[in-house]
Amino acid sequence: MKHLFSLFNSQEQTLLDEFFHYLRFKSISSLEEARPELDSCAAWVKAFLGDAGMEVEEWSFEKPSSIGGNPVIFAEWNKAGKDKPTLLLYNHYDVQPADPFELWETPPFEPSLRDGKVYARGAQDNKGQCFYVMAAVRALLKRDGSLPINVKMLIEGDEEIGSPRIGEIYQRYGDRLKADHLLLVDVGFHDIDQPSVTLGIRGICSMTFDLIGSKSDLHSGSHGGIVYNANHALVEILAKMRDSEGRITIPGFYDKVEPITDEELADIDLSFEEDVYRKQFEAEPSGGEKEYSIAESAWLRPTLEINGLRGGYTGDGMKTVIPSRAHAKLSCRVVPNQDPVRLQHLIKDFIEANCPPGIRAEFDLHAGVGKGIRTSSSAPIVKIASQALEGVHGKKATCILEGATIPVTSTLAEISGADALLIGYALPGDNIHAPNEHFDVSRLRQGMSTIARIIELLGQ
Amino acid sequence: MKHLFSLFNSQEQTLLDEFFHYLRFKSISSLEEARPELDSCAAWVKAFLGDAGMEVEEWSFEKPSSIGGNPVIFAEWNKAGKDKPTLLLYNHYDVQPADPFELWETPPFEPSLRDGKVYARGAQDNKGQCFYVMAAVRALLKRDGSLPINVKMLIEGDEEIGSPRIGEIYQRYGDRLKADHLLLVDVGFHDIDQPSVTLGIRGICSMTFDLIGSKSDLHSGSHGGIVYNANHALVEILAKMRDSEGRITIPGFYDKVEPITDEELADIDLSFEEDVYRKQFEAEPSGGEKEYSIAESAWLRPTLEINGLRGGYTGDGMKTVIPSRAHAKLSCRVVPNQDPVRLQHLIKDFIEANCPPGIRAEFDLHAGVGKGIRTSSSAPIVKIASQALEGVHGKKATCILEGATIPVTSTLAEISGADALLIGYALPGDNIHAPNEHFDVSRLRQGMSTIARIIELLGQ
Repeated sequence: MKHLFSLFNSQEQTLLDEFFHYLRFKSISSLEEARPELDSCAAWVKAFLGDAGMEVEEWSFEKPSSIGGNPVIFAEWNKAGKDKPTLLLYNHYDVQPADPFELWETPPFEPSLRDGKVYARGAQDNKGQCFYVMAAVRALLKRDGSLPINVKMLIEGDEEIGSPRIGEIYQRYGDRLKADHLLLVDVGFHDIDQPSVTLGIRGICSMTFDLIGSKSDLHSGSHGGIVYNANHALVEILAKMRDSEGRITIPGFYDKVEPITDEELADIDLSFEEDVYRKQFEAEPSGGEKEYSIAESAWLRPTLEINGLRGGYTGDGMKTVIPSRAHAKLSCRVVPNQDPVRLQHLIKDFIEANCPPGIRAEFDLHAGVGKGIRTSSSAPIVKIASQALEGVHGKKATCILEGATIPVTSTLAEISGADALLIGYALPGDNIHAPNEHFDVSRLRQGMSTIARIIELLGQ
Repeated sequence: MKHLFSLFNSQEQTLLDEFFHYLRFKSISSLEEARPELDSCAAWVKAFLGDAGMEVEEWSFEKPSSIGGNPVIFAEWNKAGKDKPTLLLYNHYDVQPADPFELWETPPFEPSLRDGKVYARGAQDNKGQCFYVMAAVRALLKRDGSLPINVKMLIEGDEEIGSPRIGEIYQRYGDRLKADHLLLVDVGFHDIDQPSVTLGIRGICSMTFDLIGSKSDLHSGSHGGIVYNANHALVEILAKMRDSEGRITIPGFYDKVEPITDEELADIDLSFEEDVYRKQFEAEPSGGEKEYSIAESAWLRPTLEINGLRGGYTGDGMKTVIPSRAHAKLSCRVVPNQDPVRLQHLIKDFIEANCPPGIRAEFDLHAGVGKGIRTSSSAPIVKIASQALEGVHGKKATCILEGATIPVTSTLAEISGADALLIGYALPGDNIHAPNEHFDVSRLRQGMSTIARIIELLGQ
C-alpha cells in the first residue's frame, strides 16, 4: 500500500495547510448568523474540487427565513465510460455549534496540531473525513490524469440540522445522483486497530417544545402553592416518557421495530468493551433498555434523549422565580422500518395528553428527519470496501452497526438506486459535537489511502 | 390625614428625582460583578439618612469570595428618651437580577414614569418601600426637628440572596438592635382598596445541584442507549419529589408543620379571588396541594419549587448531545416550626438516594435560610399599624399572611426582642422578581403617610 500512503506523504504540509483553512470556517448550520461562513465554506469546497479536475456545481436553494438551505456542492468526473461503475460519495461541510467555549483547550475555529492530532470543531465530523475524500480524488486525478471509474461527490451544508432540504434535492436533481455504489463517509471504527465497515445506522427525528404556565415569571414566595410551575410540569412529563427499565413509555413508540434475524446478526460484530468505555468517557454504560445488551441498545433499538433543558433562572447565583415557560429539546434515534415523522407526532400527543391543568404546550417538530437503514453484508460495495481496508490496515475488516445518524442516508440510497455503505475513520473518543473535537493526522493519511484504493478496486 | 399626605405632596418632584437616583444603582446581590454598585448604593442610602438627621453607621463585613456580605446601613434617632418606645424598621437596598432583559419595555435600571407608575427593577421590591420609609422619617425630622419615639433603621444589601450574614450581625451588633416594635416593610395588600397588615410569612431555604454522567458532552447517536443521560436523571429525580396530588414526597418534608388553630384562623382573611388571579397573571391557580384551599396552600403550607433548570444544549436551534451534566436550582418556602437547614439535608439525601447508576450529584446548599413566623393579632404593633392604615385609607385593615420570605424576619424578631409585624404597599401585580416591575407614585405617598402616622401613634 506504499504507493497509496505516498499520495498523502508527498504533500503532507500542503494538505495540512488546506485542511486548517477548511476548519477555520465557522460553518455552524444551526445558527442563522453563520450563513456567510457557510457560503464561504461551500465556495472553498467548490474551488478545491474544481481545481482537482472535477466538474463542479453549486446547487442553491431558496433559503428559509431561519436556518438551513445551505449550498450543496455537487462534483462529478464521468469520463471513465458507461461500462465503468459510478460511485457516489457523500460528505458534509457544516458543523455543530462549539459551545461551551470555556471547555476548549484551544479555540474551536483556530485549528491546533498537538501530538499528531488536529483539534478543532469539525476536525473529524465531517470536515476531516470530507477532506481526505476530496484529497484522495484529487490525488488520483493529478497522478493519473483520470479515474478508473465515474465518481460523483455530494457535499452538503445542512447535515447537522437534519438535512431538511434533501427532499427538494431529490425532486430537482434525482437523475444526477444515480449510481451503482454509494459511500457515506461519516462513520468509523470502534478501535483504530480493527478496521470496519458499517452496514447500518439509526435514523433521527427531533423537536423542541415549551410549556407555558403564566404571562411572565412569578415570585416563588408569593405564588408558590398557587400556580403550576412550568419547570415541574416539564420534569413530570419528561420523566413519564421513560420507565425504570429504560423503556420509552410513549404509546406506539416501539410498534414498528422489527427484530433483527439471527442470520443478519451472524455477520455483525456486537462486542462492546465496557471497561474501555468507562475509562474513555468517565461514564457508566447504564442508560439503555435493561432487557437488551449494551450493543443492541446502542445500535438496534430506538432511543429518546433529552438533548436540552432550560427553564427559569439559569445564570449564576439564585433567583427565586416560578418560570412562565420551560423548554426542552428532544431527539429520537430510530431503527429501520420506524417512521420518524410518526414518532414526532406520538411524542407531541403524549405531551399534550400529560399537560397538567394550567399548562399549555407549544411545539416545533423539526423538518430534518431521517430513517434508519441496514445494508446486506453480501452487497458488492461491502466486499470492495472491506478489501480496501484490509489492504491499508493488514487486517480483515469487520461489519458493524452505528447508533448515530446521517439523516440523508435512506433518501440518498433511494435516489441513487445504489446499495449504501457507511465507512470512515471516526473513533469513539474524537469528542465530536463536544469540546476538544480532534482527528489524527495518521487517520487523514489512512482515509485518503482507503478511498483511493476503493476507487482503484472498483475500476478493476 | 391631609397633613400626612402633604409630607409627600409638598416635595413630590424632589422625592421622585431622589427615588430614580436610588433605582439606577444596579445593586444585584446575586452577581459578584455588581459589588461596586452595591457599595455605591449603600453609600447613597447612608448619605440620605445622615442628611435626614439620623446617626448613621455602615456595618461592613469581610466579604466572602463570591457574593454577599454587602454593607448594612444602620441609622438611629434616640433622643425621644427612655420612657418612649423604640421602633426598629427593616428594609433592603439590594435587588434581584433583571434578565430576561428583552421582556422589559424600558431598561430595568433606567426608571421610567408611565401612567403614574414607576417602572424599574426594585421599583417596589424593596427600593420603593425602603424609599418611602426613609422619606417619612426624614420628613418628620425636617418638619418637627425631632421624632416622638426612638427610631432605628436597618437597611441591608443581602436580602435577595437570603441574608447569609445575619447571624454575624446578631453576634456583633445584637445590643444595638433592641427595640419594642419591629416593622419589616417588605410586603403589601392583596388589593389596594383593602389595607392589611401581615401577621406571618414563610421562610426559605434554597440549593443548587448538578448531576454528572460523563467527562464531557456526548453524541446522542453514538452514545444513546449506552450512557445514562444526566438530563433524564434530573427530570426523573425532580419528578419523584412531588406526587399527582401536589404533595412533596421527600421523606420528612412535612414532619414539623403544625396545623394552624381555629382561633388563629378566625382573625385572618383567607379569601382568594381566583378570577382576578387568572386575569392578572394569565395563570391557573392549579399548582398547590389538592387537599388544601389555594390560600392555605399559598400561606400556611411549605412548598418546593424548581426555580431553574439547565442541561445540555440550551441555545437556539438543535444540538444532539447527551449532556455531561444537568443543573437545577431549588427553593422551599417553609412555615413556622420547620427548620430550613434540616429541609436542605432531607432534599440532598433524597437526591443522593435516587441517583441512578452512573450518575453522581454535586450540591451547593445555600447559606441564606430563614424560618417562617406568625405574630399574634393581639400584639400592640398590630393594633397601631392597623389604626394608621385605617386613618390613611378610611377603611378597617385586615390581617393577612404572606407566602414570600424576608429571610431575616425570624432572626431579627429574636434579636430585637420585639413583636415583628410586616407591612407595606406591595400589590400582587407589581412584577417583582420579573420584567417590568413597577410601583405607583400614589403608593409612595400612602406608604410615606402610613409610616409617619405609625411613628406619631407610637409616640402618643
